[in-house]
Amino acid sequence: MKRKGSRIERELVDLFWIHGYAAIRSPGSGSSSHPVPDIIAGNGKRTFALEVKSRANLPIYLEKENIDNLLKFSKAFGAIPFIAVKIPRKKWKFIQISDLKKTKRGYKIDEDVFCSAINFDELINKHTQLKLKT
Amino acid sequence: MKRKGSRIERELVDLFWIHGYAAIRSPGSGSSSHPVPDIIAGNGKRTFALEVKSRANLPIYLEKENIDNLLKFSKAFGAIPFIAVKIPRKKWKFIQISDLKKTKRGYKIDEDVFCSAINFDELINKHTQLKLKT
Repeated sequence: MKRKGSRIERELVDLFWIHGYAAIRSPGSGSSSHPVPDIIAGNGKRTFALEVKSRANLPIYLEKENIDNLLKFSKAFGAIPFIAVKIPRKKWKFIQISDLKKTKRGYKIDEDVFCSAINFDELINKHTQLKLKT
Repeated sequence: MKRKGSRIERELVDLFWIHGYAAIRSPGSGSSSHPVPDIIAGNGKRTFALEVKSRANLPIYLEKENIDNLLKFSKAFGAIPFIAVKIPRKKWKFIQISDLKKTKRGYKIDEDVFCSAINFDELINKHTQLKLKT
């Protein structure tokens, strides 16, 4: 699973580079005492901090600590936090923290959340538009 | 040497966090087909991309490809590139690419370059001041 996760993360890193962003995977979260996202991507205008979840099926459950760390890193770095979700034979989807559904122990991504999430083009175009408006 | 390099890089990552920056080490450069700096640090105002060199003595020689990759990443991401140098019993020093001395095969950091480099406080304060002026 670890290996597969790395391959999926590299695939997303490649996608960002193809679209004019620089992106890097962070080392495994166990290797740092500070919060680290799975991927950080930037193009000089916008920076995204991403937690990557690759699963066979929905729903996907997320630990509160995991999300808290993503928010903590994003706030300090000045990055926009998203959960990047990859399900076999479906395109990448990107979910804002405020769109996650709360559970007793954390959060979940169910069919509703997944279907209303944005895709990669929307992720990078939406934030380009936001930039142009300011 | 790999192990020591990691420890030194973690030390610099800690220093950034202490001063209000979020910072991450990238996975080893061999693990990506894209250019990756050793460390990326940001605080919402400035982002630094750093190549870390830990050596017992000066001069330190740098390969052209190494610097080209740092510049390529920094330009795409929107980060300010620096070489972070740690020599035993001396404080961290930060060197801009334009201050490196050219050699036949790349660049070098000699006593002159090292002594005129900025320290950590200057790195983060200098760029705070630049921000305030704009």
